[in-house]
Amino acid sequence: MKRGIVVAVFFILPMIFISQGESMKAENLHINSQRLQKLLTELAEIGKDPDGGISRLGFSEADRVSREWLIAKMKEAGLEVWVDQAANIHGRRAGTDPSLPIILFGSHIDTVPQGGRFDGSLGSLAAFEVLLTLQDERTSTRHPLQMVVWSNEEGVHYGKGIFGSRAATKGPDPGELDDTDEEGIPLREWLTRYDLDPDTIDTARIDKDDYSAFLEIHVEQGSVLYRRDIQIGVVQGIVGIDRYDVTLSGAANHAGTTPMDERRDAMLAAARLIQAVREEVMAKPGAQVGNVGWLRASPGAPNVVPGLVKMPIELRDLKREVLEDMITRIRSRADTIAEETHVSISFSRTAEDEGSPTDPALQDIIEKVAQDAGFTTLRMPSGAGHDAQALGRFGVPIGMIFVPSKDGISHSPKEWTDWEDCARGTEVLYRTILELDKSSKQ
Amino acid sequence: MKRGIVVAVFFILPMIFISQGESMKAENLHINSQRLQKLLTELAEIGKDPDGGISRLGFSEADRVSREWLIAKMKEAGLEVWVDQAANIHGRRAGTDPSLPIILFGSHIDTVPQGGRFDGSLGSLAAFEVLLTLQDERTSTRHPLQMVVWSNEEGVHYGKGIFGSRAATKGPDPGELDDTDEEGIPLREWLTRYDLDPDTIDTARIDKDDYSAFLEIHVEQGSVLYRRDIQIGVVQGIVGIDRYDVTLSGAANHAGTTPMDERRDAMLAAARLIQAVREEVMAKPGAQVGNVGWLRASPGAPNVVPGLVKMPIELRDLKREVLEDMITRIRSRADTIAEETHVSISFSRTAEDEGSPTDPALQDIIEKVAQDAGFTTLRMPSGAGHDAQALGRFGVPIGMIFVPSKDGISHSPKEWTDWEDCARGTEVLYRTILELDKSSKQ
Repeated sequence: MKRGIVVAVFFILPMIFISQGESMKAENLHINSQRLQKLLTELAEIGKDPDGGISRLGFSEADRVSREWLIAKMKEAGLEVWVDQAANIHGRRAGTDPSLPIILFGSHIDTVPQGGRFDGSLGSLAAFEVLLTLQDERTSTRHPLQMVVWSNEEGVHYGKGIFGSRAATKGPDPGELDDTDEEGIPLREWLTRYDLDPDTIDTARIDKDDYSAFLEIHVEQGSVLYRRDIQIGVVQGIVGIDRYDVTLSGAANHAGTTPMDERRDAMLAAARLIQAVREEVMAKPGAQVGNVGWLRASPGAPNVVPGLVKMPIELRDLKREVLEDMITRIRSRADTIAEETHVSISFSRTAEDEGSPTDPALQDIIEKVAQDAGFTTLRMPSGAGHDAQALGRFGVPIGMIFVPSKDGISHSPKEWTDWEDCARGTEVLYRTILELDKSSKQ
Repeated sequence: MKRGIVVAVFFILPMIFISQGESMKAENLHINSQRLQKLLTELAEIGKDPDGGISRLGFSEADRVSREWLIAKMKEAGLEVWVDQAANIHGRRAGTDPSLPIILFGSHIDTVPQGGRFDGSLGSLAAFEVLLTLQDERTSTRHPLQMVVWSNEEGVHYGKGIFGSRAATKGPDPGELDDTDEEGIPLREWLTRYDLDPDTIDTARIDKDDYSAFLEIHVEQGSVLYRRDIQIGVVQGIVGIDRYDVTLSGAANHAGTTPMDERRDAMLAAARLIQAVREEVMAKPGAQVGNVGWLRASPGAPNVVPGLVKMPIELRDLKREVLEDMITRIRSRADTIAEETHVSISFSRTAEDEGSPTDPALQDIIEKVAQDAGFTTLRMPSGAGHDAQALGRFGVPIGMIFVPSKDGISHSPKEWTDWEDCARGTEVLYRTILELDKSSKQ
């Protein structure tokens, strides 16, 4: 705690603390917010995009450079560092009782094209900062602690997300290593470029019994915390995602010569369905969401009544029954629309991603330590996917800590989380780990 | 009339006449329906697309071949044939009083890609058939008669329609001859390939006082006649066309993390506007139409709330005041939608094509001669554009005769008009020309 004050006095950032008001006092922080900011700022220089933001795609030259930068820092800090054959970076700090399962925590450092400096990077560097703080404090834990940086979480490169955490928990999808990118380079080639052996990727698989928990701190990527001015989100789970391809088939016709009441206008049916999606998603209370992100009309000329429209519907909620109820009501609305517009409407489910609830005991610990530190909290779902969900599905108890995203923006050069919020989240991670270490019955 | 019976007896098509029922008897026809069918069938062989339909784009090798085929036939029939410097084909039959203005009639023979065998071709070959019938009958007229085949009506090649009729009435647009196609070939190069001199294109300009009327028979390209089982459409005019580019600007956001009530979803606003377009177009009685033919949402991912949507609105009606009233009401609806969805909506008018009414006296003649022949008629607007509109805007009185399009389909290999309907329309053209010749006060 003394160190926190020293930082505030000797570095030129006292304004940060002043601006935090009553809710956050420097003495509440064990972690070194200054150092965390410096780490995040340094990492943000790697893969800086001349067109704005950071382009550090998983399995790219910028990704490789950032990984080497972090591995060097981790080694320098005295951690036991290794990279598994799925390109996940691990850094372990021994506990006093080597027989106890490991407390695992971390995130990812790859980005989307022109992404922000916090998504993934905060969770990874917060994990590192917690270990650095413990080293500084010479605080020992009973459990071994291990930070992890999962590879290619965004999955923009090669199209499939949470690569490293999937590989470590259930292995990559069949044939996934032979997927090629736009340049024709197979994924396995990148593992080789990272000095790994793709044929031994199975050695990256972990045993869930070796881990007592996986903790991840992440920017919310939504506007709930920011708009309500709440400092810490206690994540109840990562939502399930269902995706549907919807095809609306009417009849293409001359837009000048076909009377309005003789049209079978697929665009009109689509317009009604888009509204129905929103109405049915919002028809019941809850945090469930639905989206229609694009629409393609054929033949696609201003003077032709569209005969065919394709569009996706994406639905998200923590609970499978909520997802099923939504699509049932949407399909029933579609039946009515089809009848009224003489356009046939078909749905094909293209993705059915189960939600991953967080561990209730971990939710309680996160909430308690955050409130003890004087931070305001809110229990909330995570609408976005995270590495934690792979661990959760695998059977490792997961806990997630959210910090506010300014205006809810992420995956954008405009992504921003105040440094104080980064520090608060990291402090909550620190306290959660220590509380878990103390309270575990093992 | 005797010839009509001879045809029915000696050629193997008596079934056609039998199937026509009460409304059409062979003795009603002066024109040679057999010959017309043969001409249409021969022309349909030129530019046949292996993928279906006919691809005989204006200014293409197939177009050139079809033109030479027709020019040879026209010469063979003893017409005075010439091609003007805008590539329009003319065939004149002298009248008994050379001081009288010419009665002009015709259409075009170019097609859209994979188009049908009737659009344009019927009007051109019906014009030719009328002249052939008059030659057969040795019927003389007071007025000179002139058939015309306007070049590149569809304008798929080089992007601008009714090329030949525009060139003859007001000249091509500035720089239009230097427009290049996908292969980089300027339009003027095609004129050269047709043995014409693009630098003298102005010599194709006609003097409106030289013409007493322009008549065009065309397939309806809509389903009004076909569904109501009416044989002849008496066209009231060619509708005006207004086009708008609409831009809807909301905010792109993560579709998982942004609560439904905090979205500024441009797709939702677009969906509401598409419905509003239809509702406002149909709010008042009349034949006006409106269409939204495509929609582009950005960034266009299933998991991102669309922040930007672009779409066109096309409105058609005979009357300018109806067009203005529609867009005024649509814009007012857009204002409400913008307010409710927090999405800004802007309109930019990209085209404002004035309608071209047909001559009321010609409408009366067409209706009368059609009914005299025992055909059912309907007065109706033309929702599609035609060469006649260029002549109408130029000040030449225009008359248009529509025949039914099966299922309203055109610009498609499925385009179909029954041979009997082709014959009826051609007969109406024949009778209209003779009536006009007889009744003209000049």
